[in-house]
Order: sequence, then C-alpha cells, then structure tokens
Amino acid sequence: MYYAVKGNADFVEFLKNSRVLFLLVIGNTKTAEVPGITAAGENKDLIAYTPPADAELLYHGKCLSISGVPATPDGKPTPALISYAALNLTKIPLLVVDAGLMIKPKIPYVSLNAPVGENIAERRAMNVEDVENLISNSKLLAKQLSKICDVLMIGESIPAGTTTAAAVLKAMGFEPAVSSSMPENPIELKRKIVEVAVRRVKNTEPLEILSAVGDPVLAAVTGLACGFDKFVVLAGGTQMVAASKLIEALGKRDFAIATTKYVAKDGNADLNIASCSVVASDPKLGLSKYDGLKAYEHGFVKEGVGAGGLTLLCYVRGFEILPEVERCYEKIILKR
Amino acid sequence: MYYAVKGNADFVEFLKNSRVLFLLVIGNTKTAEVPGITAAGENKDLIAYTPPADAELLYHGKCLSISGVPATPDGKPTPALISYAALNLTKIPLLVVDAGLMIKPKIPYVSLNAPVGENIAERRAMNVEDVENLISNSKLLAKQLSKICDVLMIGESIPAGTTTAAAVLKAMGFEPAVSSSMPENPIELKRKIVEVAVRRVKNTEPLEILSAVGDPVLAAVTGLACGFDKFVVLAGGTQMVAASKLIEALGKRDFAIATTKYVAKDGNADLNIASCSVVASDPKLGLSKYDGLKAYEHGFVKEGVGAGGLTLLCYVRGFEILPEVERCYEKIILKR
Repeated sequence: MYYAVKGNADFVEFLKNSRVLFLLVIGNTKTAEVPGITAAGENKDLIAYTPPADAELLYHGKCLSISGVPATPDGKPTPALISYAALNLTKIPLLVVDAGLMIKPKIPYVSLNAPVGENIAERRAMNVEDVENLISNSKLLAKQLSKICDVLMIGESIPAGTTTAAAVLKAMGFEPAVSSSMPENPIELKRKIVEVAVRRVKNTEPLEILSAVGDPVLAAVTGLACGFDKFVVLAGGTQMVAASKLIEALGKRDFAIATTKYVAKDGNADLNIASCSVVASDPKLGLSKYDGLKAYEHGFVKEGVGAGGLTLLCYVRGFEILPEVERCYEKIILKR
Repeated sequence: MYYAVKGNADFVEFLKNSRVLFLLVIGNTKTAEVPGITAAGENKDLIAYTPPADAELLYHGKCLSISGVPATPDGKPTPALISYAALNLTKIPLLVVDAGLMIKPKIPYVSLNAPVGENIAERRAMNVEDVENLISNSKLLAKQLSKICDVLMIGESIPAGTTTAAAVLKAMGFEPAVSSSMPENPIELKRKIVEVAVRRVKNTEPLEILSAVGDPVLAAVTGLACGFDKFVVLAGGTQMVAASKLIEALGKRDFAIATTKYVAKDGNADLNIASCSVVASDPKLGLSKYDGLKAYEHGFVKEGVGAGGLTLLCYVRGFEILPEVERCYEKIILKR
C-alpha cells in the first residue's frame, strides 16, 4: 500500500484523524514549449490547457476548458483521475491555486498574482520582485489556512515542471537525474536545458535560484509550505524534491513528501536527495482491467496533481482506491 | 453591545465556540460612476481602488494599492479599520473573494470569474450567463468551505452597492428606503436610478433580477450563502437585506444578518424587510477620543467590510473592540 523510500513513515499516522486540506497549485512555464520536453500536450494549446483542465476535473468530474481530459499523445489519462477518485473517497476539502497560469480554469481559484514562467532554456524564469511577491502572497494565504486545517497537502500541475525542478536542484549543488511523465525520458534534452539555465544563477539564495531557473508553481509551493504553521505534505515527485530543498533552505522543518510507487521505482526520480522523509504509495493501477490505467505501472505519467499523497491518504483512512479510480475512469473516460 | 433588530439573537450563541470563517467579497459596479451616488471615492480611481484597498488593509494592516486608506472626501476612514481590529482580536481565518473587481488587490484572493457590474442607470448589470457562472462558482467554493468551518460570515465592499441593493429589493416587490454611507443620503438620485433600472427586469427570478439590476458582489454573496451547508452570517446592512431575499428565494434557510447599530438607527436601512433575524452590534465609536471614529455615531460610513458582524463576534467571544479600533486608528491613520 505504502512504504518509506527515505526517512520514516511516522507522519502518516497523523493523517488519519487530522483536518487535511488539499491545495492544488497550477501554473505554466514556457519551458514546456521546447519541442519534445513534456508529455503534457501534443501542442502549445494543450500545454496551456492541461493545468486548468486538471483542476476542473477535480471540481466537476470533467474538464470544461477542453473536451475529454488531459492525456499523453497516445491516450494515457492525467493523474488527476486518481486524485479525483481519492477526493471522492476521503471527502477532504480542496482549493485550487493559480500560480502563473496561461489560461484560467472555469472553477473558483485562489490567485497569487503569479507570472507565467519564462523558458529557462532561453532566459531567466521570473523577475526577482515577482518571485518575492509570489512567495509573500503564498505565505499570507498559508497563514490563513493554518487556522482552518492541521495538515496542508500540496499537489501540482505544471507541464515541464520536472525540467525546472532539475535546474533548481542542479543550481543547489546536486546532480539531478530527472524524472519525467514519459517512459522514454528525454534526459539528454533536459540535461542540456538545465546546463544552459544554471549558468544564469548568480548565487545560491532560494529567491535567486527560483528567479533564474525555477517556475511559479515551485515558488508558490515553497512559500505555501513555509507560511503554513503546521505539518505539510508535498504530494509529488521530482518537483517536490526540489521544493523540499528550497523549503529547508528557508528554515521550515515539519514536512514530508508523499509520491507514487511509479516515481519511486524510477531510478531517475532523485527522491534520495529530498531533505525530508519520503513515502511512496501504490495505487495498484497495474491490477486494473483498463489499459489506460495499467500504463502507469509501465512508467507512463507516474505522478502529478497530488496523486501519490492523496492515494496515501485513502489508505491511511481505510479506503481501497483502485475500484474508485476504475469507476471514475468508466464515467469520465469511457463515459459509461 | 448587541441586540436583535428583527427576529431573535439566538444564533449569536453559536458563534462563541464554532469555527467561523470570514469571507470578504469585493467587486465593482459602474453604477458608482454616477456623480454623487457614493462616498467611496471622490473620483473614478477611488471607486476602483476602494475594494482592493479595503482587502489589503485586512491582510497587511495597511493599503498597498493606494496611499493612506479608503475614506470619505472629508476623511472619515473605511469600516475596514473596525474589521481589521476585530480580526486581530478574534484571530479567525480570512479569505478575500474577487467578485468583479476593476483592480486586483495585492494579496491572495479567490477569483470567481466575475464580471464588473454595468451601470444600472444605463443598462442591465450583467449577462445572465455570467451570473449563472458566478453563482455556480460561488456555490462550488462554499461547498469546499463547508468542510473546513462551521459558520461562514460574509462581508462586502462595493461602492454604490446600496443602490443596486435597493433596485433588487424594488424588483422583488418591496419599497426600499435605501441606506447610504453618507449622512446626506442622495435618496432622490438613487430613487431615480432604481426606477429606471427596474423597468429592465423581465421576471422575478433571482437570476433575472441580479442580471438586470444587481451587481456581482450581490450575486456572489447569494451563491456563497446558498452553497454553504451550514449557518451563514451576512455581515452588512442594506446590501445584505437584498441578499437575504435572494437567498430565501433560492431555498436556503439557516442564515442571519449582523450589522452595526449605525445602520439599525438609520430609518432608511430597510432591515425590517430582511427574510431572517437581524442583530445589530455597537462598536461604541461614539465614545472614541478620535473624531474620525466618532463620526460613525453621527451617521457617517456606518457599515461595510463586515464591520457589524465582526464586532458582534468580538463581543460574543469576550473582547472589547473599541480600544483595539483606536489602537489600529493610531497605527494606520495617525501612523504613531
């Protein structure tokens, strides 16, 4: 069901009876427009529409800004499907945060006045001032949320987010291997982008690194985690590893990462670099009767939209998630 | 301290120990641009900047989008000062909702994809479709908030909101007297606007009335209250009376109005029309050593930004609000 990949799984017990709020942080970086870098979209439009469509799926059980759901070019569906199933089961509250979207979702969302991230292959990601404001707004929001819940679980959706995350890790002195939502991980391409990008980093301050090679979602996640007074679960893979380093650098201590087994099994996932405990949960999609779900077991998509953390929450609270994911797959993808 | 103006004050007991979330709903209607209609601003700019500045004050203890604070032309300060003091004392969580702003605040805020309201003296306020989406988004948000708090207290800030509220009440068959933030209430001007506006109303459905003569804040408040599963406190004066009629028409039952004594004392406040209990609280500003605060006792400003409801919450929880309002006045207005 779940196991510790790094550190221990002690924090999991705390998820059982506490008030957990799920925050989905969505945004864009133009880095996704580099051809071949991401599976989020076949074209520029899908890069812009994937994050809002993921968020709409969680609220409405369907996407409003696109027909169908975000998927790989050959039809593997978005991990938002897993997250949607988990929210159905656990009934925990959900809020969506706009951290630099190209297209706004057709649901209520919290704005942090975040810019869209620039293509880090070509230029610095964001103005330092914008990053400062973004982190300040994220902290302000998290401070209010501290008053209404005990645990903040943060998921993300940002195409090419693993590339900016790798650049952040590299800029912090690590040699990231880099995960990807594609089984044929375009590692060489990413490595080249990261190498060029980190040359623009002037010092090792978190703000400078985010401004030079980060993305607005990573900045927002960092600020939200640091502003929240209590325990934070970073629900995601490589991107949350990068976030963990930034959060640690800013002085926050009580947080952990929850991801999927599919990321943990990926030798390129860098989970060992994380500055906190890492737990992996297994949504058991390999046992599904549907190929689109089975594909996750074979390294497609793997994680995103907080799927790993929300799967963990299901297990901790006594729910089997696979039957609900299949039910949602039937309703949303097969339209039965 | 507080008393029932209509119905009873039974609900007040419930505020003592329950989890209360304060939602400030802010927006604009171009109706405010009719010369002489509102005290919110001396000019068009101040109409646009007053709602975001009020929201910034609650988050930061100062305004970021304007220098100083929103005030009447002769310097009576915004009721956000009272609300800020009350939030300091009670420490309840605060979220700000953008329901059709001309200018976005420099704080985190929830967007409902609301349009700015048109000038009802000249044309219909909003497209029916926009109102439908706005109410739908408001309900979606409130549904999530139902999971994290027991009571939703809703305040507002929208220049000329009392005029659109009067038009809504008139369209619903009432003869509103109309309150105002000015002691010399421009009643004749308002009556004329209302009369012209209501001719555009095609039927008595809440959606049609909001579209024809309402404003986006009123639509959002209505949707939020209807989407919240538990008890709602509408914190405000005339505008919340109009909201109460719309909310009742849409089938919600468990809500009340909390306003200030200054509105209750105003013969033009229409509180008797409300479709729920109405409680008035007394911030005792008449006892202040500062003229800017004493002015409230003489009919200036009176209410807004949830001041009445938040004052009530202070009393219920054992806080005297006046000393804290004075302290905030010194810090924010006198900059001591």
